[in-house]
Amino acid sequence: MINNQLNLSLYVVTDPFLPGSQPLKLVVEQAISGGAVCVQLRDKKCSSGELFKTAKELIGITKKHHVPLIINDRLDIALAVKADGVHLGQEDLPAQVARRIMPLEMILGVSVDSVQQALEAQDAGATYLGVGSIFPTATKPDAGYPIGLNTLSEICSHIDIPVVGIGGIHAENAGLVIAAGAQGVAVVSCVVGADDVTRAAEKVASAVSKALMKT
Amino acid sequence: MINNQLNLSLYVVTDPFLPGSQPLKLVVEQAISGGAVCVQLRDKKCSSGELFKTAKELIGITKKHHVPLIINDRLDIALAVKADGVHLGQEDLPAQVARRIMPLEMILGVSVDSVQQALEAQDAGATYLGVGSIFPTATKPDAGYPIGLNTLSEICSHIDIPVVGIGGIHAENAGLVIAAGAQGVAVVSCVVGADDVTRAAEKVASAVSKALMKT
Repeated sequence: MINNQLNLSLYVVTDPFLPGSQPLKLVVEQAISGGAVCVQLRDKKCSSGELFKTAKELIGITKKHHVPLIINDRLDIALAVKADGVHLGQEDLPAQVARRIMPLEMILGVSVDSVQQALEAQDAGATYLGVGSIFPTATKPDAGYPIGLNTLSEICSHIDIPVVGIGGIHAENAGLVIAAGAQGVAVVSCVVGADDVTRAAEKVASAVSKALMKT
Repeated sequence: MINNQLNLSLYVVTDPFLPGSQPLKLVVEQAISGGAVCVQLRDKKCSSGELFKTAKELIGITKKHHVPLIINDRLDIALAVKADGVHLGQEDLPAQVARRIMPLEMILGVSVDSVQQALEAQDAGATYLGVGSIFPTATKPDAGYPIGLNTLSEICSHIDIPVVGIGGIHAENAGLVIAAGAQGVAVVSCVVGADDVTRAAEKVASAVSKALMKT
């Protein structure tokens, strides 16, 4: 049984290293207007103070549009700006530890790349899973070898919480990710790195929407 | 009026980049046996997962010796391991924001280098201040130009919470820092980078102790 209250159909992850002349908050505003229903702030390089400032800026936008803001890695920053959730990788604070110290209603996302990790994250109290990399990606050099659609499908069949596929996903292959069992796709470069962010988001959102209707 | 319940006379800050063949937990154990009364875990380069593991290891040692463990920058890690406190620099989460989301009894240390910053940190609810760099230091390249003993003295005369001097402090100049008005000294390389950590800590502790008796 999937928790349908959390819509993750188009989950946009910010990346400070992508080229682009626009401020991040404009990019996020455009992504939401194009159909993003969840936004993750990811920046592992900036200072905690800078991350806090950016998160504060973004929460103003996401709250206005009733879209959850998830902070990557930093539960303290998420708590500080009253973000909707935190997303933890396998190298971050263990999910069960984070769950213990965060408010119950807060969203906990966990990155996994195997059935074993997926089950562990679910047991630890994850609200949703980010599964990947599905396809090869240049955005996250430490993302590891792509796991492919079969592993995604296997993971989806073993767990009860929503799954978003991540890694190398764009408008042309997003439908495959949904067909494999994911409830949504997480995208980075193909949206936040696009010249026309709104249009790029619309294209992925439309592909996801069509694929979801067939499931 | 100084809060005398918090003894910060010899405050040892760990640094993962210092040469040394011993595991950090042994170094901390030796520093405590040499007189360290407060330990700060500082590592801005490792993953959150690694920092959590190290913090968990150290909290076992510090609790055994009834010495507070303070985590640098990461309030989430401090909460996760139930550390005694967090220490924030001017580039970290703002002190007043951290104070709002942390338990009241938790120690909040703040790095400052001016009277203005000191007063702001005190107003924000800091438990103690780390003032520096007092002398030139190679351990923290971003520490800025040394502020010297006069500025330390000026800061101490304007605030009511305990102060530890930090930056380039060792057994030979520790007494000057106390004489300038600090309640303790924070040391990095001269203790955790020493061949004989216990002996190095003893030497600084003894210098501080002598100077404190004269104040």
